[in-house]
Amino acid sequence: MVELAILKGTNDRLPEEQVLREEIIDILKESFQLYGFQPATTPILELWEVLASKYSGGEEILKEAYKLTDQGQRELGLRYDLSVPLARLIGMNPHLSKPFKRYEIGPCFRDGPIKKGRYREFVQCDADTVGVTSMLADAECLALAHHIFSKLGLDVYLEVNNRKLLSGILIAAGIPSELLSTAILSIDKMKKIGIEGVRAELVDKGISSDLTESIFEYFSLEAPYLEILDQLEKKIDNTIGKQGILELRELHRYLTLFDIIDDVKLLYSLARGLEIYTGTVFEAFTKDPTILESSLCAGGRYDQIIGKFLNSEQVIPAVGISFGLETIYDALATRQTPPASKTQVYLIPIKTLDLCVEITTMLRQKGIPTEVDLLKRNISKNLEHANRQQIPFVMIVGKRDLAQNTATLKDMRKGTESSIKRDKIYSHLSKLLGE
Amino acid sequence: MVELAILKGTNDRLPEEQVLREEIIDILKESFQLYGFQPATTPILELWEVLASKYSGGEEILKEAYKLTDQGQRELGLRYDLSVPLARLIGMNPHLSKPFKRYEIGPCFRDGPIKKGRYREFVQCDADTVGVTSMLADAECLALAHHIFSKLGLDVYLEVNNRKLLSGILIAAGIPSELLSTAILSIDKMKKIGIEGVRAELVDKGISSDLTESIFEYFSLEAPYLEILDQLEKKIDNTIGKQGILELRELHRYLTLFDIIDDVKLLYSLARGLEIYTGTVFEAFTKDPTILESSLCAGGRYDQIIGKFLNSEQVIPAVGISFGLETIYDALATRQTPPASKTQVYLIPIKTLDLCVEITTMLRQKGIPTEVDLLKRNISKNLEHANRQQIPFVMIVGKRDLAQNTATLKDMRKGTESSIKRDKIYSHLSKLLGE
Repeated sequence: MVELAILKGTNDRLPEEQVLREEIIDILKESFQLYGFQPATTPILELWEVLASKYSGGEEILKEAYKLTDQGQRELGLRYDLSVPLARLIGMNPHLSKPFKRYEIGPCFRDGPIKKGRYREFVQCDADTVGVTSMLADAECLALAHHIFSKLGLDVYLEVNNRKLLSGILIAAGIPSELLSTAILSIDKMKKIGIEGVRAELVDKGISSDLTESIFEYFSLEAPYLEILDQLEKKIDNTIGKQGILELRELHRYLTLFDIIDDVKLLYSLARGLEIYTGTVFEAFTKDPTILESSLCAGGRYDQIIGKFLNSEQVIPAVGISFGLETIYDALATRQTPPASKTQVYLIPIKTLDLCVEITTMLRQKGIPTEVDLLKRNISKNLEHANRQQIPFVMIVGKRDLAQNTATLKDMRKGTESSIKRDKIYSHLSKLLGE
Repeated sequence: MVELAILKGTNDRLPEEQVLREEIIDILKESFQLYGFQPATTPILELWEVLASKYSGGEEILKEAYKLTDQGQRELGLRYDLSVPLARLIGMNPHLSKPFKRYEIGPCFRDGPIKKGRYREFVQCDADTVGVTSMLADAECLALAHHIFSKLGLDVYLEVNNRKLLSGILIAAGIPSELLSTAILSIDKMKKIGIEGVRAELVDKGISSDLTESIFEYFSLEAPYLEILDQLEKKIDNTIGKQGILELRELHRYLTLFDIIDDVKLLYSLARGLEIYTGTVFEAFTKDPTILESSLCAGGRYDQIIGKFLNSEQVIPAVGISFGLETIYDALATRQTPPASKTQVYLIPIKTLDLCVEITTMLRQKGIPTEVDLLKRNISKNLEHANRQQIPFVMIVGKRDLAQNTATLKDMRKGTESSIKRDKIYSHLSKLLGE
């Protein structure tokens, strides 16, 4: 006999998890559409050559990509993110009218070590705007995130920065250009490991203590968004830094129009890694850190990547946001017991199966998720079942109900019971369910 | 430079396809839930050992399964259906309370030749009831299918049969047990290749012409559901055949209660292949054959499979239904041009960006999918964009509108234009969109 098992880092999701996961996905989809993103999907199987090309995910990710050979001896891989497929899609469909705003929700795969919150098969939820340079698109991504978390009942704040500002600061501080990237990697950790941690890393990397101190002079500001920009503007005279400040001001203006500026913080050490982002970067966190410490979503602007991937002369500007389904689930599941069922009404026939199937059909036709006992169980076993499934309403129809044109309705949450007229079943229930 | 391509038999789905595909998925999900099926998911990556075990998909399917080895040298495969993962799920979760009614919608993979309607990566949509022997569960699957197609606007009929009846007929006709399976395979094709085709196949298989004629005596009935059963009952005296008739009668009773009997036909040559099904089998077709000739969904009862797969003494009864997303899409796309966007309102600012972003935000907060021009294009380019995206309403806000607290609303389908008061924008639009 085969031993029943699944690969570590992959998961079955029983209804007690999946009902909530679907609700999250529904809110994501609805919000993406509300903000003008349209659905587009790409295959899970990609040609290995595409996944491994120079401007795709990079060496580190490629090591973790699942690779396989098909019967035609073609080398294939399982996609490790949704960004490389998007770049390929753009390249293969040059006719697409811009802006191209698409979302995709689907599984991605990484053959790497498993840690808490890191899986081998996981669901990625991405929204990207391709073809727009205006900060309006960046602000729209942030407004979208804010909307989604508010719909999910999570009170969040957003941290933003601009990679051009960060480069500008380091140039102004005198960092030589060959050390720019490595310095940014360390400064990115400011929030996590603190000034002392960053200082130690920079020294380790061979950056002189004079230079290090010169950097930290810029990073001692604790002030609101626009004040930080006002102060930095006085100290930065290089083009890239000034451009970053300009973009952050433009972003601020749009965030105000989108009415979310009160929940946005400028964290001007934020870089979000190295390779991809060219301008705006951002992350979202719950205001209450006990819910979840890690970020709930993240994204930014990557104006160079698609063009380079397509080996095109043309710059194809893009900004995107990425939500991890597993992370959002973890944040919500700490606060509530997820429902195990979407069923609202459960019918228990006592020698009245025909009538109960008719009532079930009627309620379903009117849009109320309804179940009828399929196993001819007795009342107590049936009530147990409904209870375990957290179904809010149970309707028992006995012989006497049949004669009197009634049904017995139990409100499982309140523990109350009432007799209702048969022709009032729907109106009664729809009222109760609407409350 | 990498050559941009995807594997044949896999597909990118741009919004002009995916918007409709998502609408189909939404209707499937909503209907599954309405009928008491809860969402559960399984990984795409399964251990090869599980996919290849004796009572899984069978030799033919296994030849087409994608296989890979991970970095830990584990043999893995991509799932080729959702049934084997379901059986494994049941085996690994013995505590699951019965009936276990779950649905799963997700990609499956087959490394086989590509034909029209056959892909290497395709989306399977399954609903199964595990743990119920009553025909109520079978009838519920059929009612579910009927509901889904009615929601999709497809007028369908359902063909049903019972494998026990089919075996019973052949036994009564005198077919020796070692030829039962192969004879059923031929008779299954009755609708497709006609009596003459089946006769030729049976003769080819070495079944005597006497026996063949004896079989056809049973298959000449053209009558309504219950009349066929009445007539067959007189001729069949073996247990399995009688059991099949009993189950089909029970099914008829429930189909009547579910109010779909008028759209059900008993096609008593139907077998749906050999290996899996033990009782009820069914398929759905559009009444208008010009829409689609092939079946829109199919399913049946497979009481032996899960128990055998789990090497269990116990019989675990199950009945399920399977929808192919691609097939349903094809049926719908023949009749309508799928929408390319879910966006309902498109705002064109003429030096009024701030106001337009505010209106956009307001409409989104009220639940209307809204877009605002992100590219500062002129009116005609913007109208072209809205037209191409089939967005029904465009709102233009110019300097004069700003001064007069108005906006210019264009109904793109009717080609009409009107000036509306700014504080009436939402009430006006929600009325138009509700029409």
